Amino acid sequence: MTETHIPFTGVVRALPASTPFVGPEALERIRGAKFDARIGANESAFGMSPKAKAAIVAEIERASWYGDPENYELREALAAHHGVSMDEICVCAGIDNIFSVVVRMVVSPGVPVVTSLGAYPTFNYQVNGNGGVLKTVPYHRDMEDPEALLAAARNEGAPLIFIANPDNPMGTWHDADTIQRMIDGVTPGKLLVLDEAYIEFAPEGTAPPLDTSNPNVIRTRTFSKAHGMAGMRIGYAIGHKDLITGMNKIRNQFEVTRLSQVAALASLHDPDFVRHVVTEVEAGKAEINTLADRHNFIALPSATNFVAVDVGNGDKARAILKALDAEGVFIRMPGVPVLDRCIRVTVGTKQDRALFTEAFDKVIAEL
Amino acid sequence: MTETHIPFTGVVRALPASTPFVGPEALERIRGAKFDARIGANESAFGMSPKAKAAIVAEIERASWYGDPENYELREALAAHHGVSMDEICVCAGIDNIFSVVVRMVVSPGVPVVTSLGAYPTFNYQVNGNGGVLKTVPYHRDMEDPEALLAAARNEGAPLIFIANPDNPMGTWHDADTIQRMIDGVTPGKLLVLDEAYIEFAPEGTAPPLDTSNPNVIRTRTFSKAHGMAGMRIGYAIGHKDLITGMNKIRNQFEVTRLSQVAALASLHDPDFVRHVVTEVEAGKAEINTLADRHNFIALPSATNFVAVDVGNGDKARAILKALDAEGVFIRMPGVPVLDRCIRVTVGTKQDRALFTEAFDKVIAEL
Repeated sequence: MTETHIPFTGVVRALPASTPFVGPEALERIRGAKFDARIGANESAFGMSPKAKAAIVAEIERASWYGDPENYELREALAAHHGVSMDEICVCAGIDNIFSVVVRMVVSPGVPVVTSLGAYPTFNYQVNGNGGVLKTVPYHRDMEDPEALLAAARNEGAPLIFIANPDNPMGTWHDADTIQRMIDGVTPGKLLVLDEAYIEFAPEGTAPPLDTSNPNVIRTRTFSKAHGMAGMRIGYAIGHKDLITGMNKIRNQFEVTRLSQVAALASLHDPDFVRHVVTEVEAGKAEINTLADRHNFIALPSATNFVAVDVGNGDKARAILKALDAEGVFIRMPGVPVLDRCIRVTVGTKQDRALFTEAFDKVIAEL
Repeated sequence: MTETHIPFTGVVRALPASTPFVGPEALERIRGAKFDARIGANESAFGMSPKAKAAIVAEIERASWYGDPENYELREALAAHHGVSMDEICVCAGIDNIFSVVVRMVVSPGVPVVTSLGAYPTFNYQVNGNGGVLKTVPYHRDMEDPEALLAAARNEGAPLIFIANPDNPMGTWHDADTIQRMIDGVTPGKLLVLDEAYIEFAPEGTAPPLDTSNPNVIRTRTFSKAHGMAGMRIGYAIGHKDLITGMNKIRNQFEVTRLSQVAALASLHDPDFVRHVVTEVEAGKAEINTLADRHNFIALPSATNFVAVDVGNGDKARAILKALDAEGVFIRMPGVPVLDRCIRVTVGTKQDRALFTEAFDKVIAEL
C-alpha cells in the first residue's frame, strides 16, 4: 500500500521512513537489559545544580500552568550574563529545536546548505525535513574546515552554513581567531549557524566575542551539557535582533516546559556548579586518555565532555562498540570514514569510568 | 532597516513580526503585579496527580539524560489504554507541537486549509507559518459547523481541515454521531484534524470510536487539561500508521522532556485522579452558571474546563476583561464577532472562584 491516501507534501513523501535517532533506551530494548554505563550520548554524568533541582521541586505545584511563552525572566538573565539585549536571545526546547526553527526560517525545497561530512546529524535531519540539499565538506585532520565550508557555500550559493565549535563527534575545536575569520568571511546576506553546545568545556579563547550587530551568524548554546539538563530540553540562540524576530515568527511559543525554565534560571545563577562539572570532566578525560595510551590508541584532544579515541579503523571501532554493548557499556562512534576509526566516549561518573575501563580492557584483549 | 540582510524564505519574510500569544506573565508585566486569579488560559486548577508529582521528583536525578526519543513506554501504555497499536500513536510536546508537525506534513505555500472563524489560533499560526492559506467558515449557533467545514474543503480543494470537539473558545460540542458523519464525509486523500484536548470533560457519547484504519482523520489528545500538565508540554496524536510514520519523519525526536514522560505515564495510571478533576470542574462550572444567571447573562453549555458567558456584545466583554484585570482576575474572550459577545472563564480553585465572583459582581455593578 502506498501513502497516496494521505496528502503529504512532496518533501515529506520523499523522506525516508526511518530516522537516524536510535536512543539508548531503544538499544536497551534490543539487548533486553539496561546498560550499566550510559556514556554514549554526551549527557552529563554530574547531574544538575542542587539549586536547579530545588527550583524544579518548588515549581511542581505550578506545572499545571503553561510556561511563559516569552521566556522573559530567563532571557533577561541570559542577556545580563552575555552582555547582549533580551531581543537578541531566543529560548527554545534545546538546540535541536533551535535548528528546526532556524533551518525552516531559511530553507525552502531545493536550497543548498553546507555542513561537514559526519557532523551533527540533527542539523542535517532538519535540512532534509525542509527539502534542503546538503552539500558536505570533509573534515581536515579530524577538525571541521572553516575555509573549505565558506568556499563550498560560495560555490553553491548556499544561504546556510553549519559549524560546531567545539565539534561533535570529534571533540576538536578551533581558536576564537579562526572562528572569527570564518564569521567575517560569510558572504553578506548568508547565515552561519555556530553551534557552541560544548563551549563551557573549551579553553579560554575558543569563543569569539559575541557581536549581535552581525546578522550573518547565529550562535547556539544549551543547558543540556555542562548544566546537566539534556532531559529538560532547553537551549538558546544568540544573534542579531532581526534573526531572533524571524525565529519568533515561527517557533512554537509554548514549547519550553515550566520546570525547565526555572531550572535553567537557577543553574545560570550557580556558576560554581558548572565549574565543578568542568573540573570533573577534565579529570574524566584524563582517565580516558590514560586508558587509551595504555592500549596504544590515540585519544584526540577534546574541548567537550567526551573523547574520541582513534582505534585504527571503522571495522575495529564497530567491533569494539558491539563488544562493549555486550558488557553493558553504551558508547557511540562517528558515522563516516575516516572519522569512524574512532570511538566516542562520554565522560561518566567515577563508577561509569571504572566499568568502562574494565570492559574496555577485556574487550580489547579478546578482539 | 529591512531584513534583506538575512536569507529568510519568502514565507517567513511575509509573516507578521508580532505573534498573537500574549501569555498571562506578559499581562502581569504590563499591569505590574501578579494576578490573584489566573483563570484565563484553560489551565487546570486542580494540579497533577500525586503519582505524577512523585514520578517527577523520583526522575530528577535522571533528567540529565535525554528522554527516550521513541516515547516507547508511554506509547505502549497509551496503545493499551485506547485499544490501538503503538505505531498508531505519536507523542509530542503538547498539541501545539503536534499541529506544527501535522501542518508542515501537509501544507506547502499556497495550499488552502479550512477551519472555523475564531477557532483555536495556534492551528492557524502553524498554517500561516508554512505559507498555507486559511479558509474560514463561521460558527453556527456558537458551534463549529461540520457540514459547512466539509463543504468549504470540497470547494477549495483543501487537503487539511480542522475541528475541535469540544470546541475552544466556546466550550460547545457535537455528539459522536455528528462527528462520525463528518469523518465519513472527508474526501478520500484529504485529512481532518480532530482536536479532542478537552474530551475528558465531555459527556459520554462525544467522541466517536477510534478507527485507525481510516487515513482521513488524525485525533489529538493532551495531558495539559484534565491531567493538569500544561506546563509539562506533552500530548499525542492517534491515527492511521501511515500518518504517524509521516509525523515521525519530521518531528523533533527528542522534544518531550524526561520528566514529562514519567509524569504522563504515572497520570495515565491514575484514572481516579482525572475523575476527581472532572467532578471538581463540573462543580465549578455550575457555580459560574449560577453567577451568570444572577446577572441575567447566558452561560453557554460547556463540555470543557471553562465556560463562555454571553454578556451581550464585544465592547461590553472587552470592558469586563479590562475591569477584571484591574481587580487582579485574568480571563480571556473569543477574538471575533459574534463570538466576542462572550467572556471565557476557566474553572478555578474554590479560592479563584470566590475571587472571581466578588470581582465580577463589582465590575458588573460599576460598568
